Amino acid sequence: MNDTIRSIATIMKDLDNILLFPHINMDGDALGSCTALCLALRQLGKHAYVMINEPVPKNLDFLECGCTTDDDSVLSDVQLSLMVDCNGMNRIAGRENAWNRGRLKGCIDHHATKAKEIRYDFSRIEPKSAAAGEIAYNIIRAMGAEITLDIANCIFAAITTDTGNFQHSNTTSRSHEIAGHLYKIEGFNSKVISALIYDRRSKEAIKLESEVIAGLDFYAGGKLAVGKVTQKLLKENGCTMDEADGIIQKIMSIEGVEGGCLFKETEQNVRASLRGRTYANMAKAASVFGGGGHVLAAGCTFTDMDLEQAEKALIPVLIETVSSPENK
Amino acid sequence: MNDTIRSIATIMKDLDNILLFPHINMDGDALGSCTALCLALRQLGKHAYVMINEPVPKNLDFLECGCTTDDDSVLSDVQLSLMVDCNGMNRIAGRENAWNRGRLKGCIDHHATKAKEIRYDFSRIEPKSAAAGEIAYNIIRAMGAEITLDIANCIFAAITTDTGNFQHSNTTSRSHEIAGHLYKIEGFNSKVISALIYDRRSKEAIKLESEVIAGLDFYAGGKLAVGKVTQKLLKENGCTMDEADGIIQKIMSIEGVEGGCLFKETEQNVRASLRGRTYANMAKAASVFGGGGHVLAAGCTFTDMDLEQAEKALIPVLIETVSSPENK
Repeated sequence: MNDTIRSIATIMKDLDNILLFPHINMDGDALGSCTALCLALRQLGKHAYVMINEPVPKNLDFLECGCTTDDDSVLSDVQLSLMVDCNGMNRIAGRENAWNRGRLKGCIDHHATKAKEIRYDFSRIEPKSAAAGEIAYNIIRAMGAEITLDIANCIFAAITTDTGNFQHSNTTSRSHEIAGHLYKIEGFNSKVISALIYDRRSKEAIKLESEVIAGLDFYAGGKLAVGKVTQKLLKENGCTMDEADGIIQKIMSIEGVEGGCLFKETEQNVRASLRGRTYANMAKAASVFGGGGHVLAAGCTFTDMDLEQAEKALIPVLIETVSSPENK
Repeated sequence: MNDTIRSIATIMKDLDNILLFPHINMDGDALGSCTALCLALRQLGKHAYVMINEPVPKNLDFLECGCTTDDDSVLSDVQLSLMVDCNGMNRIAGRENAWNRGRLKGCIDHHATKAKEIRYDFSRIEPKSAAAGEIAYNIIRAMGAEITLDIANCIFAAITTDTGNFQHSNTTSRSHEIAGHLYKIEGFNSKVISALIYDRRSKEAIKLESEVIAGLDFYAGGKLAVGKVTQKLLKENGCTMDEADGIIQKIMSIEGVEGGCLFKETEQNVRASLRGRTYANMAKAASVFGGGGHVLAAGCTFTDMDLEQAEKALIPVLIETVSSPENK
């Protein structure tokens, strides 16, 4: 049962020391929502931090706003640990100690599955919200905090990244209504934020993308496109894996491609990012290998196979997935 | 002096035969706005056509909606010729005969410069509108027409293409408010429209882009990036020049690039598309060679030089442009 925005705002306004938890592999929505909430709480005189245990991705560095810490002993008496844009201990792996310090546990998220292992004192899960940033925005407003330029930037980053710049089908009237409000904040300029997020790709990353695209393999009459980011390719271009972000979207922009797969060969394992265009159920395909996600955006990890073995295992499943329109 | 939306709607509701004119090299805003207006006028029982004299770009084919014609004798008594998203005879080149048939002449546009050679019976120029589609939307509402799914799709296409998917600094609260309304139309799905516009690139076009990017030259310590789409590259990849759309945006996404230039070698001439990130005045640079445009998005055409000569002429000007922050 969802708690109301108003009741969550009321609880949070009563607390002084709060830790916010974005999910592992933080993205613009997870970090932007956490930082927006953190800045609003501080504005209201509270102590708040965004607890992380991995580096902030370079293109999201402007969302840090002095809010993040990896010190799990920060604050002397943590009254609330709040998961944001996630739900479940595996989504905050490595930060269990900090999480457990919160006397209250809360969760705001827009992913449908609710973790069973946690007894939240309050939670709000809105699967129809395009971004956790929409929920964060409403809580900030309900707490009576001012939407400052920094908060506006964080909320815009959260919503624009999770909606694919207002293009994906998760976008709603409300996503646009909230964005419309942000433009009324003095100094707000979407282009500035957008350029920080999207237009700081290194020459090397751009070249890496070009090479992955040039090396695409097509199957099922062009319905399935498969790319590979190998360790070799990363080393040759002097790139790290996070610089491969965006390649899967590129693959999906090719006419006729119903399913896209990007293999990422890390030093520990092989990951596959999977995307469907219209009917291909990629969550189902990923689940064959213990992965999951949304129907049109899913992923799985191969821990006991090398890249070649992972390809041999996954590609036939994907060919079947894109070849069966009834596979919805 | 701008006429009001209401007075324009009143005039148009009184007329039966209307021709709508998008600008040459039509884009999503020009065609989407025209078609939306055309569909609304037909819904109100009028005869209306979108007058064109060039093919509709492939990625915008869904905006045609049975509205376009290249028959300049269409309709027996044209009561109104309306320019949409443009302003000036040179912007409807080749369609002068059809234009002159309208007993009344009108214009709705969001480009600041007003043509002096035309005496419009009514006009509305809103330089602060992100897209002509916003003006078209308001006129359609003011005429009392229903926003059907087709009209919603056209308006969304108009706004999303002209705002760079709600990222450019021309985007306003109103852009989002109008988009927010469109999501309330039964069946509206931004992803469907977005995929039609952006996700139908051919394998060949994607490969062409990869090769242009791989061949970029950098100057001025990485502040200037220059790419070339040559006839040779087009032929090798089996592409036409319109498939090079989007490459300049890619160039501008590279960190540190303040100015981008994409040479396009056509069979008749050499064109240069110029973009600035923050301070580089590309309109000024283009004007040296008789071109023009906006400060951060301009272009020029070389009719008496080959590609190599055009490079030798333009690149030094661009190096100076990106090297002088005071060049604003």
